[in-house]
Amino acid sequence: MASTSLLLQVVFFVALAAEAMTAALAAGRRKMDWFGVCLLACVTALGGGSTRDLLLGHYPLAWVENPYLLLLVCAAALFTITFARVMHRLRWPFLLLDGLGLVVFTIIGCDVAIAMGQSPLIVIVAGMLTGIVGGILRDVLCNDVPLVFSGELYATVSIVTGAVYYFGLQLGLAHELVIVAAIATGFPLRVAAILFKWEMPKFVYDKELR
Amino acid sequence: MASTSLLLQVVFFVALAAEAMTAALAAGRRKMDWFGVCLLACVTALGGGSTRDLLLGHYPLAWVENPYLLLLVCAAALFTITFARVMHRLRWPFLLLDGLGLVVFTIIGCDVAIAMGQSPLIVIVAGMLTGIVGGILRDVLCNDVPLVFSGELYATVSIVTGAVYYFGLQLGLAHELVIVAAIATGFPLRVAAILFKWEMPKFVYDKELR
Amino acid sequence: MASTSLLLQVVFFVALAAEAMTAALAAGRRKMDWFGVCLLACVTALGGGSTRDLLLGHYPLAWVENPYLLLLVCAAALFTITFARVMHRLRWPFLLLDGLGLVVFTIIGCDVAIAMGQSPLIVIVAGMLTGIVGGILRDVLCNDVPLVFSGELYATVSIVTGAVYYFGLQLGLAHELVIVAAIATGFPLRVAAILFKWEMPKFVYDKELR
Repeated sequence: MASTSLLLQVVFFVALAAEAMTAALAAGRRKMDWFGVCLLACVTALGGGSTRDLLLGHYPLAWVENPYLLLLVCAAALFTITFARVMHRLRWPFLLLDGLGLVVFTIIGCDVAIAMGQSPLIVIVAGMLTGIVGGILRDVLCNDVPLVFSGELYATVSIVTGAVYYFGLQLGLAHELVIVAAIATGFPLRVAAILFKWEMPKFVYDKELR
Repeated sequence: MASTSLLLQVVFFVALAAEAMTAALAAGRRKMDWFGVCLLACVTALGGGSTRDLLLGHYPLAWVENPYLLLLVCAAALFTITFARVMHRLRWPFLLLDGLGLVVFTIIGCDVAIAMGQSPLIVIVAGMLTGIVGGILRDVLCNDVPLVFSGELYATVSIVTGAVYYFGLQLGLAHELVIVAAIATGFPLRVAAILFKWEMPKFVYDKELR
Repeated sequence: MASTSLLLQVVFFVALAAEAMTAALAAGRRKMDWFGVCLLACVTALGGGSTRDLLLGHYPLAWVENPYLLLLVCAAALFTITFARVMHRLRWPFLLLDGLGLVVFTIIGCDVAIAMGQSPLIVIVAGMLTGIVGGILRDVLCNDVPLVFSGELYATVSIVTGAVYYFGLQLGLAHELVIVAAIATGFPLRVAAILFKWEMPKFVYDKELR
């Protein structure tokens, strides 16, 4: 994370907390106990980056090197339990923070792959994994078919963000400028996707092979 | 993959595409969007080898080193969407390609473990993981109990194939000959298992512990 | 495992077998075949330690280095099939062995992280992952929401055990003494949790965000 700016760091922490809070609400819908809430929050907030690191062989994982990330995530999850009564009025703040998190996670994931000298396609895949896998793991542990497979544009936002970021850097633009450009592309795209219900075309297939 | 013959390479690509196509049909039954179709196809086609590599610490993963594999799998998945209308007539071609893929994935997985100097049991386990884990991940993401736990002989075919391959090589036979022998054992065994509904005995237990 | 005492080794084997047996019964409730029973047993008994090793980058994994562990686990699973008729009378022996296994897995997991020079929090997390992840993977493969998220104290027992173990060692006490102290804390705690139905508070949330 040394190559990311301070701003990105701050937004990263905010996004981690937001992911933890949405995971805590999902845990509450499954009537999990406080431990389950914290574990689901950790898997959701840190699972994307961890999966990317496992697949790329990038050790140590962020939370192993900086264990305070676990405490931050658990604190956000427990905070959510305390204030759950008012949380349901916060749909839009959550959606905005989640969208910002998606974009920032993507950029950080791209940075890891770039620092390892990966090829362009893998850089973009690494960004996308960082952005979306946490939510997939959350849905699998809650026994749902992952939402990212069928909802409004989400993974696509991550791919577009990663592409802007990677090719911006390739063009030799200043790092801060490229970060801002990537956020300024991905974040409004996600917000627009929610507002206007932009979705990828569905593939509906109901025949059995015979 | 340097030690595998050209034939094995070609069959490997065909098998990857076949796995991607069956995954795409499974995604269609869940009404996933095009992105979900591609992601499920990648997990199914490449997840077995990736799991093997993670467990053995064998880096870089095949698709990280050769990202065009991701494009191949996504192309096969998108092709499936386009031609889904006629796919349901292709049950037997799919079953045959899937069976061939199982055998070839197994051989490639054994090769990786052999090149790492693993013990015989781990070589066979590595082959089996390569052959079956993609399908398990597909079923978990589709929120099903994995089919491989209860259907016609599948993992068993992989184990038999791996054993023939490993001990054939141990006997000092020519590599090409051992590949052919392993395929000639495993593939007909799988086809026969489908035709004659050969299954492992089931373990049915319906008591609660008390 | 060099730093663990012989006693710990023996209890570890017993605990592996007990985990395998409970997994086999879970597989039987899903009508899995013999192969599925063995695979689910391996994932349950060895999945916690394997996940810990993947996340910490600790290679080779225990069962890759000592493949006889796979045979031990499969033997215990197949034994369970044979004697399933009488197993349902063994609820308490199973619960006791499972509780002992939780504690011993935790200690072994802590040892691995300590030997890698990890920080205190990561040592305790490593112990907890070793203790609980096998059961989580079992429940995911059986298509259940993991039991550990809502049942009697389980992960908490693991965390307490790990804390006693880690800080006991930090105090400079003899290794054998600390092992005994950790077991003597964690095991009765788990038994009491089952007897008296001690649970973490639940977080119940049934509103949608709006």
